[in-house]
Amino acid sequence: MMANGRLTDLAHYTQRLRRWGAGALAGYVVLAVGLVAMTALTEPDLQRAAGGWIEILLWCCLGYFLIDGALRARAKLQAGMAEPGLLLLSIAIDLAAVLPVPIALACGVAAPNAWLFASAWILKLAQDSSGLAQIGRVFVNERKALASVLVLFLIVLFLSSAVMHVFERKTQPQAFGTLPGALWWSVVTLTTTGYGDEVPRTALGRLLGAAVMISGIATFGLWISILSTGFTAESRRRNFVQTWDLISKVPFLQSLDPPAITELTHMLRRVEVPEHTVVIREGRVGDCMYFIAEGEVEVGVGPAPVRLGPGAFFGELALLGDSTRTANVATTKPSTLLILDLADFRTVMAHHSALARAIDAEAKRRAIDNQRRRELQRQTSGSAS
Amino acid sequence: MMANGRLTDLAHYTQRLRRWGAGALAGYVVLAVGLVAMTALTEPDLQRAAGGWIEILLWCCLGYFLIDGALRARAKLQAGMAEPGLLLLSIAIDLAAVLPVPIALACGVAAPNAWLFASAWILKLAQDSSGLAQIGRVFVNERKALASVLVLFLIVLFLSSAVMHVFERKTQPQAFGTLPGALWWSVVTLTTTGYGDEVPRTALGRLLGAAVMISGIATFGLWISILSTGFTAESRRRNFVQTWDLISKVPFLQSLDPPAITELTHMLRRVEVPEHTVVIREGRVGDCMYFIAEGEVEVGVGPAPVRLGPGAFFGELALLGDSTRTANVATTKPSTLLILDLADFRTVMAHHSALARAIDAEAKRRAIDNQRRRELQRQTSGSAS
Amino acid sequence: MMANGRLTDLAHYTQRLRRWGAGALAGYVVLAVGLVAMTALTEPDLQRAAGGWIEILLWCCLGYFLIDGALRARAKLQAGMAEPGLLLLSIAIDLAAVLPVPIALACGVAAPNAWLFASAWILKLAQDSSGLAQIGRVFVNERKALASVLVLFLIVLFLSSAVMHVFERKTQPQAFGTLPGALWWSVVTLTTTGYGDEVPRTALGRLLGAAVMISGIATFGLWISILSTGFTAESRRRNFVQTWDLISKVPFLQSLDPPAITELTHMLRRVEVPEHTVVIREGRVGDCMYFIAEGEVEVGVGPAPVRLGPGAFFGELALLGDSTRTANVATTKPSTLLILDLADFRTVMAHHSALARAIDAEAKRRAIDNQRRRELQRQTSGSAS
Amino acid sequence: MMANGRLTDLAHYTQRLRRWGAGALAGYVVLAVGLVAMTALTEPDLQRAAGGWIEILLWCCLGYFLIDGALRARAKLQAGMAEPGLLLLSIAIDLAAVLPVPIALACGVAAPNAWLFASAWILKLAQDSSGLAQIGRVFVNERKALASVLVLFLIVLFLSSAVMHVFERKTQPQAFGTLPGALWWSVVTLTTTGYGDEVPRTALGRLLGAAVMISGIATFGLWISILSTGFTAESRRRNFVQTWDLISKVPFLQSLDPPAITELTHMLRRVEVPEHTVVIREGRVGDCMYFIAEGEVEVGVGPAPVRLGPGAFFGELALLGDSTRTANVATTKPSTLLILDLADFRTVMAHHSALARAIDAEAKRRAIDNQRRRELQRQTSGSAS
Repeated sequence: MMANGRLTDLAHYTQRLRRWGAGALAGYVVLAVGLVAMTALTEPDLQRAAGGWIEILLWCCLGYFLIDGALRARAKLQAGMAEPGLLLLSIAIDLAAVLPVPIALACGVAAPNAWLFASAWILKLAQDSSGLAQIGRVFVNERKALASVLVLFLIVLFLSSAVMHVFERKTQPQAFGTLPGALWWSVVTLTTTGYGDEVPRTALGRLLGAAVMISGIATFGLWISILSTGFTAESRRRNFVQTWDLISKVPFLQSLDPPAITELTHMLRRVEVPEHTVVIREGRVGDCMYFIAEGEVEVGVGPAPVRLGPGAFFGELALLGDSTRTANVATTKPSTLLILDLADFRTVMAHHSALARAIDAEAKRRAIDNQRRRELQRQTSGSAS
Repeated sequence: MMANGRLTDLAHYTQRLRRWGAGALAGYVVLAVGLVAMTALTEPDLQRAAGGWIEILLWCCLGYFLIDGALRARAKLQAGMAEPGLLLLSIAIDLAAVLPVPIALACGVAAPNAWLFASAWILKLAQDSSGLAQIGRVFVNERKALASVLVLFLIVLFLSSAVMHVFERKTQPQAFGTLPGALWWSVVTLTTTGYGDEVPRTALGRLLGAAVMISGIATFGLWISILSTGFTAESRRRNFVQTWDLISKVPFLQSLDPPAITELTHMLRRVEVPEHTVVIREGRVGDCMYFIAEGEVEVGVGPAPVRLGPGAFFGELALLGDSTRTANVATTKPSTLLILDLADFRTVMAHHSALARAIDAEAKRRAIDNQRRRELQRQTSGSAS
Repeated sequence: MMANGRLTDLAHYTQRLRRWGAGALAGYVVLAVGLVAMTALTEPDLQRAAGGWIEILLWCCLGYFLIDGALRARAKLQAGMAEPGLLLLSIAIDLAAVLPVPIALACGVAAPNAWLFASAWILKLAQDSSGLAQIGRVFVNERKALASVLVLFLIVLFLSSAVMHVFERKTQPQAFGTLPGALWWSVVTLTTTGYGDEVPRTALGRLLGAAVMISGIATFGLWISILSTGFTAESRRRNFVQTWDLISKVPFLQSLDPPAITELTHMLRRVEVPEHTVVIREGRVGDCMYFIAEGEVEVGVGPAPVRLGPGAFFGELALLGDSTRTANVATTKPSTLLILDLADFRTVMAHHSALARAIDAEAKRRAIDNQRRRELQRQTSGSAS
Repeated sequence: MMANGRLTDLAHYTQRLRRWGAGALAGYVVLAVGLVAMTALTEPDLQRAAGGWIEILLWCCLGYFLIDGALRARAKLQAGMAEPGLLLLSIAIDLAAVLPVPIALACGVAAPNAWLFASAWILKLAQDSSGLAQIGRVFVNERKALASVLVLFLIVLFLSSAVMHVFERKTQPQAFGTLPGALWWSVVTLTTTGYGDEVPRTALGRLLGAAVMISGIATFGLWISILSTGFTAESRRRNFVQTWDLISKVPFLQSLDPPAITELTHMLRRVEVPEHTVVIREGRVGDCMYFIAEGEVEVGVGPAPVRLGPGAFFGELALLGDSTRTANVATTKPSTLLILDLADFRTVMAHHSALARAIDAEAKRRAIDNQRRRELQRQTSGSAS
């Protein structure tokens, strides 16, 4: 088992490619090709040379999105009306990808201009990303604090541009002669973008400019502080909810007392592993153990490898005594694993003696088991040779 | 009940619009119109074409701010002298919005210039924002650390510009020939703004420039670190104080032992919900429960919806067993709710068994109640059909 | 007592000014004047018009720094050889402020150039700033992580500029024709400074440029993460050490059991208050209590105000029951106070019942006392009228 | 002992230089010289003047890297196949440093161009940096969140450049006439780099530009938040694992109960100290204690200095009573020390009375011991004089 790791790896990658190829990967390739083609169409040289071919390519992409959107909508409608808001958003994105270009062409807009609407295809990326919803929630939760920073930003913006307009309008009427011009300078400076198309030249203007730049850094810093605080809280919350669902599938964890479960839920990290992937390699240094929430793994000890299903754990030996892995472990099905790091493992073991004893007992049982298997193997191969 | 959700929603939005329209929204609209008009007046073309009309509009805005400021001051004076510092600030902002323009016009300043003082209207945004006070406290609390970073900033600024002046004055006498010019380059570079109006050209100057840019990032990083640390501490503190006041309105929470109350106070999030807003939708996935601090909600189960007043809680069913919401819940009055997330709910339940038992008992009572109501409804509709 | 708050305030500010004026403030004023004069000397117009006067002013500043440095060194040497490293640094800064200019002039350097060495005066700011040492320790503690980011930065820098040199040297031989030019572009871009003096024009160059910009943000983000983690740890550590020293001066806190002391030490914030400053104002909303580590305060209740010395606490009434302050409290000497916020107060009270009981008992005793004083006052004023 | 600190210091630095000189330092010097030479070769003037010498220098560097890479590979292969991935990466870097230049020259590429491949030498820095692996793990762990921000970035990028292309193509056909041009502007603006080579001029374009800049700051902020959260978690985890290994070498720490060990492991900081380095200086203020994991130190009390080996601790006196160090402590061998700060020391002492008692007992024993030694010394010197 696992002897020919390279072949297994190859099989795994082919499998992965096949699985992806059917769905996501094709979508990403079509998206990339479509956007590049649409971009190329705005270059006059390319348009003259190969405009027709590019348009044919674009029509193919549009066709793909039409079919993909229809399939997607049907699948979702069949699955039920859960989360109607997200469903509507998804349908809106599909429509925005498909409708505007033909409508624009029908209304007589020239081809390169009509195809600019194809830039809405980029929204397709948002359809699959659950992370965007999380980012959205951070902004919603922290909206009050972010609004305060925005108010600060607007006050500095408006006052500084009014004063700068007064300072600089005589020397640079072109740039600072009107308030909109001064506002543009102020935005460019406060965000530390600094194009340099409008720059104060007078001594007073430069003093004010320096103050605006430093305010810009402060505003920036506050903005990042708020997002950072909000993001940490939100991802902690979300992580807990997702891990909590998986813990119910590991009887061993479910049997612990409530404080230990709660503590563990904060510590465990989820990871999704495709099938035929080597999770642990023999001889490597180990610093975490694994619980199987879904799927199956194969532990390659001795002549008869052991299979572990949902609810089992492995990799704990490296944390209890010697730190090198004693066997290869690979998935046999797509699996969801819960990882417990050494640091957290020690903390939990220290505070919850029941868990420590249970893991210890299981580990000893397995160590003896492995010992026996090896002896058996040695005898077998001894008699064979 | 709640059957015609769309109508309820419409009613709610109308309500909200009406309530806002009277106060804040009108103020924001006048503010936006006034600032745009003031900005437009500095454009020579627009001024020539419609200067008179714009000025009339500006006078209207000024009138609105005069009346608004007077009403605001009267209301505050009647409400008592609490926080005289904030009151004075508010009055100062009202005066700064109203007085300067007429005074400037009376002193013979030309109209477009006099109206530049109207940029002080933007300060109106600061009057309503309690968040700005919080940001202010962060700067006050962290003033020592921020001052250290500023000292570092000034040292790098001054030394680098003196050296750059020596390096570059021969090749670029216009830009680096004087120390103020070199200081300007240094500020622009240290804040990573980078206008590009003054750029080192010599090899030594560019080496120094690279060092200044990297120092700029380091200073920036320190600045953000300090603000981030301070902001997290300050918002934790403020959140506790505000939640603590609301907890006294929930008898159930008040009856817990002190450690549980303290822990809960750190966990609960406040949210203010206008009336006739759907808080929980049947069939959605639930990951939090609610305590009512102020207001009233209506739980839409069976033919006779239940009303819950201040001190009650709801939404706990989804956290105890099945995770989908079993009924719509909507506010009937403007309410303040305290939200307890699943992660925190589990942590509290694990550590404080009294709370766990109390919520469990109430939840069971309600589940039985709901069961009965549904059976009743089924029988009724059965006999009706 | 405290009736004429404005007079007290005035006295306080005069006092403060007098105390500062003798030491720090004068130093800052001389520093600012000296640096401005030195900067002005590099402007040819100003130099021609008033070069002589400016030089006289600069010599006065130099004289001040000479005397100041001598006094400072004498004071430090008398105080003993504690922290010789810091002492040497301080003396080096004093010498750097005084020596270079005369030496340069003696060597025949022209006046404006010789005075450029006066930019070293800015280092005087570092002499008084204990915060800089803290920032230094953050860099020392996190040197490994920061070095890793620097390595990443250098790798991206070098590889990107070599490739960009190949991409752009034909279209822009002036900017990208040599590797140093390309390196300059790379530094300017990676730090997100973006002068715009060298900008890629070819399609491949722009693609690489986009990648470099995004790498720049990532590097920036890592840098900030490391500094932020290090700064939070360092300031937590330093705060503990400083507060720990002060706690030994409050017998009440010293009498608690060790876990409570440790917890409190992490919570208390130090603040230094000059004499005759109002710490608490009657009628305001209170959200913290105070322990006196050093100094003395006067609580303005009834006709006979109470004085509290080191080790006493006040302001706890507002946290126990009603949240408005019942009396003015002002310092009578320069004091060091330890602040305990409401959030932390509640947490400590919940976990350490001994502390809760002690504060409660003292608060009740005082409430009764205040009651008696007020009755006494009422009777006195009743019989007087 | 330790009387002649300067001589000891000198010896130490020579030692350090000698040890470094053999390995790392030489490598860094060759790397720096090689990269500077390679950079110089692209300057036409330098190439004409000294091209031959520079090339000889470059060949020397290449030779050094060839030998260094061979030695390194042999050493690693002898040490065993642990971590084959890292080994392959290291060999790949060695090959990338040595092969491309000769191959390019053999293929007939001109010398300055061929030597551009020497920029791969910078990758040598990555071979020794374990920190880069840590940074890599942060990106791997947070890949989902970072991908979400990237999606947001791409959506804003594409939509804003399509709209900007429409707004600005008439007034600036050169810059915004094609979509690639607009995309370039969008990247430059979203990353707040702001070259200023392409700047919107129309009113609508500037409004959109302002929105893009503010989006840029928000994206930036999210990016930093994610990296910061991930980095803090990763370095906490890694620190625990490394410290855990060292704790097993301190019997005193191993004898504590599991919760105390876990808590301590999170608190201790590792530091590697070369031999003959003074760790503690007599008379300084002390705010931490040390455990010896590896190596040996010499405590300079009285005439007979005490040597402490692995497992011992020192510096605890300053934390227990008086805060000034009572003796010099210097390493006699390269040592690995574990540092426990005052703040953490107090926290541990408060929660784990067994540890407190043990340290206290040892400290008292030593204090008495020191007392005796000093008396002995005084008597000896008394009788000697």
